[in-house]
Amino acid sequence: MSHTDAGDHRRRLIVVSNRGPVGYEGANGGRVARRGAGGLVTALRPLVTRHDVTWIASALSDEDRVVAAAGTVEEHAADGSSFRLRLVAHDRDVFRSFYEVMANPVLWFVQHGLWDLRHGQEEPLDEAWGAYEAVNASFAAAALEELEEVPGAAVLFQDYHLYRAPALVRAARPDARLAHFVHIPWVGPDAWRVLPRPVVVGVHEGLLANDSVGFHTERWRSAFCEVCEDVLGRGDEARARSHANPIAVDVDEFGTLAESDLVRRARDELATHRPEVLVVRVDRTDPSKNAVRGFQAFGLLLDRRPDLAERVQLLALLDPSRQTIPEYVDYRERLEHAAADVNRRHGRSGWTPIDLRVRDDFAGSVAAYMEYDVLLVNPVRDGLNLVAKEAPLLNRRAGVLVLSRNAGAWDELAEWAIGVDPLDVEGTADALERAIDLPADERAVRHAGIAGRVRSHDLFAWADTELAALDARSTMRP
Amino acid sequence: MSHTDAGDHRRRLIVVSNRGPVGYEGANGGRVARRGAGGLVTALRPLVTRHDVTWIASALSDEDRVVAAAGTVEEHAADGSSFRLRLVAHDRDVFRSFYEVMANPVLWFVQHGLWDLRHGQEEPLDEAWGAYEAVNASFAAAALEELEEVPGAAVLFQDYHLYRAPALVRAARPDARLAHFVHIPWVGPDAWRVLPRPVVVGVHEGLLANDSVGFHTERWRSAFCEVCEDVLGRGDEARARSHANPIAVDVDEFGTLAESDLVRRARDELATHRPEVLVVRVDRTDPSKNAVRGFQAFGLLLDRRPDLAERVQLLALLDPSRQTIPEYVDYRERLEHAAADVNRRHGRSGWTPIDLRVRDDFAGSVAAYMEYDVLLVNPVRDGLNLVAKEAPLLNRRAGVLVLSRNAGAWDELAEWAIGVDPLDVEGTADALERAIDLPADERAVRHAGIAGRVRSHDLFAWADTELAALDARSTMRP
Repeated sequence: MSHTDAGDHRRRLIVVSNRGPVGYEGANGGRVARRGAGGLVTALRPLVTRHDVTWIASALSDEDRVVAAAGTVEEHAADGSSFRLRLVAHDRDVFRSFYEVMANPVLWFVQHGLWDLRHGQEEPLDEAWGAYEAVNASFAAAALEELEEVPGAAVLFQDYHLYRAPALVRAARPDARLAHFVHIPWVGPDAWRVLPRPVVVGVHEGLLANDSVGFHTERWRSAFCEVCEDVLGRGDEARARSHANPIAVDVDEFGTLAESDLVRRARDELATHRPEVLVVRVDRTDPSKNAVRGFQAFGLLLDRRPDLAERVQLLALLDPSRQTIPEYVDYRERLEHAAADVNRRHGRSGWTPIDLRVRDDFAGSVAAYMEYDVLLVNPVRDGLNLVAKEAPLLNRRAGVLVLSRNAGAWDELAEWAIGVDPLDVEGTADALERAIDLPADERAVRHAGIAGRVRSHDLFAWADTELAALDARSTMRP
Repeated sequence: MSHTDAGDHRRRLIVVSNRGPVGYEGANGGRVARRGAGGLVTALRPLVTRHDVTWIASALSDEDRVVAAAGTVEEHAADGSSFRLRLVAHDRDVFRSFYEVMANPVLWFVQHGLWDLRHGQEEPLDEAWGAYEAVNASFAAAALEELEEVPGAAVLFQDYHLYRAPALVRAARPDARLAHFVHIPWVGPDAWRVLPRPVVVGVHEGLLANDSVGFHTERWRSAFCEVCEDVLGRGDEARARSHANPIAVDVDEFGTLAESDLVRRARDELATHRPEVLVVRVDRTDPSKNAVRGFQAFGLLLDRRPDLAERVQLLALLDPSRQTIPEYVDYRERLEHAAADVNRRHGRSGWTPIDLRVRDDFAGSVAAYMEYDVLLVNPVRDGLNLVAKEAPLLNRRAGVLVLSRNAGAWDELAEWAIGVDPLDVEGTADALERAIDLPADERAVRHAGIAGRVRSHDLFAWADTELAALDARSTMRP
């Protein structure tokens, strides 16, 4: 379906996500709006562009709270499309427990296989779970009020912050049309069964209150169905209400971005200093992204291949992530040490093997997308990993993708990528070496394969599939 | 089948395990044999008692190496049954890498869901995996030699140290009859897929080289079959060759033990100092046993129930475990801190809420089995957990079992135990409280249920099932 076809049918949608597309800051007695780039905002652009959207999100800043008090406000996206924004102000302590304990690290780590079972959590989970319920109840109350304003609207919940809200909306409005998209991996019963039963039951019952639940891959979907069967005896219902639909790239937007002045300047800067072989990683400083082992693997490669000295560089552009959470602060230190260790062992005057830049630099990342020879994407586990799709789309050097078999994107791109198992440091060094040595014709074929796939299954198709799945399943509920 | 029936059919068996039933130490120019109590030695007593056994195990001490050089020696079990013992001397560095890296922590932690994916391992796994292959090759060579000595013998491999040996024996002797029993949990594809592919393939191909593979529960068996399908496309073969057969207690031996002088003295000692309500845990200081969260839960219970002060005590008898491995040293410190913390908060002159004893004290453990009012068994994950079966068999006070739903024993004993989710500290405190408050008639019914189950499915039945499964499947191989 092309953009124009779908545009004919403008729908009423209520999008619910923890982080909104716009945030506010007080400045000189006035108010400044920050429009996010990347992440959920970008992912949901097709909805805002083509449909009548009310977006409900948490008030995160002080100025957000002022806006929240005013009720729903009119806003517009970067492309000029307008939408209504409703910010929800939660109790600060409750929100902290919801976000910094239950959502991260607990749910995020459990679903990425990163939950450390050896160490007792600092506080019992019941308080954090209570906070999670409370924040979800606030979201549900806001969604119910907006449903009064926009009768018949479909409610689209996003991600792991909102597993409980659908059940609360459903209880009040049995006829509501509710969908959820889970942007992170799902794990099987083994991983869930260690948690308190009320959490496991609450999460899965919450999701099953939706008419439709989307995941990036069949693997995550099938794990979800398995837990629904194991814990609730509702595996059949989970299968009937869920589907796999990998999120995709907004091809036009990335094309425009690549032509922008900011990116052009970043690319010029990169081109003048680039080594013969440029290896790139673009991540957040999240333990799930596995940067430490990536750096270790790059060090091993340099051990083996003295001929690469001064010819190759790993440019690591890492966005600092969740720095209020101790595990994330700790991991950031570890990755800085790991990079420094490789640089100490191998660096020479005028050559830094790993150029680690921990900052938010979207233009620099897009420039690196265009210039890499090898892209390293080795997460321990990842819902999808959009970098693995965005970067090859823009790359101008027929660069090679080295990709974790545990990223959701592996299911789409395996044919053209070089696979790595995330804990296999030696194997990751092997894969980097193979990528660097790959003949030009094979690089071209692999690169074209990925870019073709990304173009043919784009973000508008993804959004259409989500809405079609909801429509097909809304009639199922008695 | 009774003991006597099976005794009529004496078979030739070669048992292979890392730790043997007897170890040696040099003393005053002579040699002293140490016979192990508990663990694998006890578990395999029915084999030695009733069959013609050659036991192959690692030489662990210097004196073991002297014995190893002499070839096979005649030995006898504690009950007087004789068997042949062959100790295998491995290269010390290779053995260290095999044991202290690959077997523990990697395989043990991965299979218990304890592998910490956030932190890079200190050394790449390929060296440790090479060491694991090398030690398995030494075991396979020894088994092949013994097969020459005892033609037609069945080879019974034990546990996670020996996943590769069956494939090596099979390659040399396609007609050999090979069985394996896995004493620890199995986990699904999610948990395995992070490891290097050669490890995952090697482990599962190794096990499938057996005619028959036994697990404690259907849950572990089904995870094994799932990974065989996912990684090797051999799920059907795995299903045909595997079964669940929970290991059991040697009822007579434990009865005799309970009557021994050592245990009687330990019990008298305990009886004179016991509180009104005695809560007991008996474990190794292994992170999988989850003692830290158990202590935290006991502390929460005391917070809630001031009336229990000076009336209740948690006696924790913990055998120090694998103290050459840093993660184990670290965990032992953490559990000592956790106990000290509860004692500091709640203790009074003359009353220590948690009496933590970290030492090898088998007689003391058996005495505690007999005397507990509540037994806490809350592992994060556990292949079976024999304490949950041994202790109720001997208990004289109709004590209540609080049991992790992630222990293999849960599948057998759920009906009579109070279940806990291992990470749920609050829920564990709830369960302890409920156990303490349980009316006498309900305690009696639950206790009788467990003891009855343990008596009816005893260790001799377990061994007979293993041999029958091997016989049934030996004809399957073309």
